[in-house]
Order: sequence, then C-alpha cells, then structure tokens
Amino acid sequence: MAQQHLDPAASPVAGSTLAAYLQAQATEFLRALRVQREGGGASNGTQESVDAARALRRSARRISGTLHTFRPLLDADWSESMRPELAWLSGTLAREHAYAARLERLLNALHRLSGTVAVPQQATASPAAAVAGRAGAEPAGPAQRAQPATDRGNLTVGAAKAGALLERQLTLARTRAHSAALQALGSSRFHAVADSVAVLASEVPLAPTAPPKKLTPLAAEAECRLTDAVAALPLMTAGHPYNAEALVHGLSADAAPHPQDAPWHQVRLLLRLHRYALEVLHGEGGTVDMRLHNAGQALNRHRDAAEAATAASAAARTPRIAPATAYALGVLHADQRHEVEAARFAFQRAWSREAVGTG
Amino acid sequence: MAQQHLDPAASPVAGSTLAAYLQAQATEFLRALRVQREGGGASNGTQESVDAARALRRSARRISGTLHTFRPLLDADWSESMRPELAWLSGTLAREHAYAARLERLLNALHRLSGTVAVPQQATASPAAAVAGRAGAEPAGPAQRAQPATDRGNLTVGAAKAGALLERQLTLARTRAHSAALQALGSSRFHAVADSVAVLASEVPLAPTAPPKKLTPLAAEAECRLTDAVAALPLMTAGHPYNAEALVHGLSADAAPHPQDAPWHQVRLLLRLHRYALEVLHGEGGTVDMRLHNAGQALNRHRDAAEAATAASAAARTPRIAPATAYALGVLHADQRHEVEAARFAFQRAWSREAVGTG
Repeated sequence: MAQQHLDPAASPVAGSTLAAYLQAQATEFLRALRVQREGGGASNGTQESVDAARALRRSARRISGTLHTFRPLLDADWSESMRPELAWLSGTLAREHAYAARLERLLNALHRLSGTVAVPQQATASPAAAVAGRAGAEPAGPAQRAQPATDRGNLTVGAAKAGALLERQLTLARTRAHSAALQALGSSRFHAVADSVAVLASEVPLAPTAPPKKLTPLAAEAECRLTDAVAALPLMTAGHPYNAEALVHGLSADAAPHPQDAPWHQVRLLLRLHRYALEVLHGEGGTVDMRLHNAGQALNRHRDAAEAATAASAAARTPRIAPATAYALGVLHADQRHEVEAARFAFQRAWSREAVGTG
Repeated sequence: MAQQHLDPAASPVAGSTLAAYLQAQATEFLRALRVQREGGGASNGTQESVDAARALRRSARRISGTLHTFRPLLDADWSESMRPELAWLSGTLAREHAYAARLERLLNALHRLSGTVAVPQQATASPAAAVAGRAGAEPAGPAQRAQPATDRGNLTVGAAKAGALLERQLTLARTRAHSAALQALGSSRFHAVADSVAVLASEVPLAPTAPPKKLTPLAAEAECRLTDAVAALPLMTAGHPYNAEALVHGLSADAAPHPQDAPWHQVRLLLRLHRYALEVLHGEGGTVDMRLHNAGQALNRHRDAAEAATAASAAARTPRIAPATAYALGVLHADQRHEVEAARFAFQRAWSREAVGTG
C-alpha cells in the first residue's frame, strides 16, 4: 500500500523498510492509546495507564525522530506538519513522569546525605497511586524497612525541611503536569495527532518523486551529526575524574541552567535519533549495542541530575525559608552537580571503550 | 659524645646515626629560633619570620616523630617527657598557618564556584602582612588581574556574603592563633622546650642499656604500622571515581567532623613517621620516594579539604545569616567534601602505583 506513492524507479526497499517501521510504531501508538482510553479515558494512576502513557511517549518519539532522519524519503509537507505535533504530545506526556522522577532522585539524595535509608518511591505512578501504594506497603527486607517518618527523625531539621519543601513544590508541579496531560489527551489537537497516526498505521506518505538518497546514507548522516557533536564535547576533561568542572559557575549570579550542559543534552538527543535510525535499518528486535546503551544511560543520568540540581537551587530561592533549609538545598545542589560530572565521566568511558575496540 | 650513654656491646652505628639525625634537627630548630628572635622576638609577619616558624614546626615534628619511632634506643624518661612538649609547640605554631590556608582554600573555591578568578592570597604571611601585600600588589598577568572588589561584583549576594563571613570568622581565629603563638614563644614552657632541644643538639640521651632492637627493625615497624593502617582503609571504594562516599552523612544531625575521615588522618600521621624514619636511615638528602611524596600530598589535601568543609558548615550555623548565605555555604561544604573524595582517589592511585611496580 505504501509503495503506491513511490516512484518505481526509486528505492522500493528503502521505502518499504521505512514504511514498515513507521507503521509498527503507529500501531503501537494506537494500541497504547486504546489502553489509555479503556482505563478511564485518560491516565488514572493505575500501573496499566502509566505503562500506556510511557508506550505513547515511546512511539511518538520514534515516529518524530524517524520523520526527521528520513525526511527526504517522506512527503515533506506532511512530515513537517506532523513533527511539532508529536513533539508537543510527547513533551506534555513526559512532564508528569519527569517531576515524579526528579522528586524521587532528590529525596533519595537527601536520605543518602543524611545517612538514612530511602524508601523507593513509585516514580512512575500518579500522585494518587503513589500515596496509595506507600500507605499500603508491607515492611520489606532490612534495606526497605525504614519508613519516611522514621527517616525524617534522623535527618537534620534543614534536610527534613528541604525535603518537605521539594516534595511540596515538585508534587504541585507534578499535579499540574498531570492535569495538563489529561487536558491534552482530551483536546482536539490531540485527536488530530491521533488521526494522523491512524493514517500512518495504514499508509505511510512517502515522497512522490524519486528520493535523492536511500535509507543507509540518511542513517549515516544521523550518525555523523552525533559523532560531530560528541567530538565537540570536552571529553578530555570529562575523562579526568574529579575535574570539578560541573560545579563551576554553580554560584554565579545567572539563575538559568548551566550553559555548559547544553552540548551534552544535544548529544543525548542525537544519540537517540541515531538509535532510532538503527532500529529502522535493523529492526527493533536486533542486538542491543551496549556501547550506545551505556552512553545513552549516562546522558539520561546527566539530564536528570542537571534538572534535579536546578530544582534544588530553585527551591532555595523560595522566600522566607530558614537558613538551615537553604544550606541543605545548597549541599543537595552541589551533590547533583557532582552527579552531572560523574555522568559525563561515565559517558566518556562508555564512548571511548568502543572506540578502542573498533580502532 | 652521644655514644658515651650507649652500651659498647650494643649498636654503636645505630646510636650514632640516630644521634646525628636528631642533632641535625635540633640544630635546625635552634637556628630557626634564633632567626625568629632576631626578627623581633616573635613572628612579626615578615617572610623571614614566616619561614622561621615553618622551620621550627618542621624540626619539632621530626624530633618528636623520631623519638617515637626509635623509642627503645633512647633514654625513656627523657623522650617520654619531651614528646608532648614538642607536640604542643608544633601544634600551637601550626594553627595560625592552618587558618590562613583554610581561608585561602575556601575563598578560592568560592571564586571557582562563581566563575571568577581568585586572587592568590598570601596564606603563610600574618594577617598584617597579607593586608599590606595585597594593597601594594601590582596588576599581574591576565589570570591575576581581577581584584577581590571586582570579583565580588560577579558573585551572587550569597557567595559574596559567605566569603565575607568566612573571612571574618577565619581571620579572627587566625589572629587569635597568632596571639597564642606569640604567647607560647614567650612562655617558660617554650623556654624549657628550647633548652631541651639545645641539650639534644650537643648530646643525644641514648638508652643506657643495650637496646633490644636496632635502627632498621624499628623503622620497619613504623612502616608496618603504616601499611596495616592503609590496608584497613576503604581503598576499593576510593579507587572507584565518583563513589559519592565523602558526602554521605554530610547532612546528618551530628555536627562533629566526619568519623569516616579519622582513619585517613591516622594514615597521614603514620606516613609522616615512616618518611622521617627513612630520613634517619638514609639521610634527609636522599632521593625522594615519589610514591610516598604523592601519597602524602594527597593526604594533606584530604585533611585540608575536610577541615575547610567543616569550617563552611560551622559558618552556616552562625545565627541570623541570610538563606542565600547559608545556601552558598552548603554548596561550598559539598564542594570541599568532593575534594575529600578526590584526595582519597588520588591517594589510592599513588599508593597502588608502586604496589604494581613492586609486585
């Protein structure tokens, strides 16, 4: 069906491989959407609905990334109009999870810094589910026996107050993100995206004329963009442990996120596009490239720690907090910036490992 | 002269080597003391007086350490009574320098964290000399051009206030330590130490009976105490970069210095004793063991960073400070605890390097 758009003189294999991948992702998107709707019309905090939201984001990212990398093979107008809509959707759906994960990371760090054992939170569940899950939890093994209330007793006042402040702020942000996601899922804008994806599942709008390039060269270009961006990273510094680079400007007057983080975030996105392009070429079930996997994990950790550090310093700007609270947030900020540095080190190690193996 | 105390059947070589080392250190002590007295009766802030104070501490530490390691070769009563006096003296003299170095370290860190260039302070000079030296300083190369007043403009209010608070507290502590050192140098207790050292310079009170052990076995015992203490350190963890161990308990209710630091401080002292014992055996002019040198430097850095971190958290407990100040002190505390972790990593590297070379 997809091939009918394609000039027969062009690359039918490229077109059909690409179409098959996009159709599979679109089908996955629609399946997740159905689960979501059956579970009450929107994410209602059950594990099923959380998994469905994750699957929605996952396929939306893959469709969007594939439209970008293989642009010349696809109908230009259609893919240009679809990408920002998919980005809006996956961004909106991702926010709730991101706030929950950020809070979990920060509370775990506070517990570590206070020498107490943290209770693993259910980062992926909605606020309601998290509360329910925690209240109903049975005492587990020794490592999990400590309950939040007990832990707090061992914290300094400052750390406890910092934890409470972060919990308040990030839970509020999460609740707002939850409402925004619900609203988005009920919006006509979302229905238009869902309709486009439904079309995609049955018929991929390939470029009507012979594409100038085929699948492999386009995937190679995506890899080039990645390796160029990695080459521009300060990997020499990052590979030197305890370089203290991530905390530089940590107290500068500029309240914006560290500008030094941007190239790393960019590499994270390019790595993802490269990974999706490999999926198009070799299928999703292919062998996992452990180097890419580890490098990607390091960059996820980099992003999470950078955002957690920003959340800690933002919380410290709350008016009328006690000095002890601010002190704890300062320690926490620096701790997370240290995590940023550790993640860069891990990325450097992961990336250079393969280079040695290949070279 | 020294040999007259020694049983002729015992180890005349051991006795004379030990006596020669102690006499050389005692002579150095007396020379430094003379410089100090000629420079105005006590440390008056000139470079000469600073150098003399350092030389006094240096020889006092060596005499004290040697009395400890080679105890069985020396007159027991005499060496037992002399060691605490030498420890008191070098401790009293070291304090002023320590506060100055701590302030310099913390201000440098604050400048680094604010992304500004720090002006190297004259950590070893007295407060008066430091002020004089800074006021008269000519603009140097680009790296030193920024003056403190200019740098402060680039700091956040919190970092600037934290710097001012630390400067106030540590300068006060340093001035007090300066007065205490002056008082000590004029005390009868000090004159008694100086008299003992003067006796030592001419005649070392060796053990009257045949010592059960000679020089080398006693030095080997000192080395054993060191290697045993190193073996008990968590070197596996320390050798794993970014283990985040040094900040654990960083926010615990206990205001006392980190108990995890104590074994490292102990190794630092044992390493020093080992180094002095090698000096006794091979002379001070012998080749420097770079492994011991690097390991020792790492442990000095460990101690300095740990004390700086404690000073930052102590400053954060000052009543009525602004939250922004407390936040900056929290970041600074965590930064210095990272330095502690980095120093442990450096020690692990320095220590294992030789072990690989020898094994």
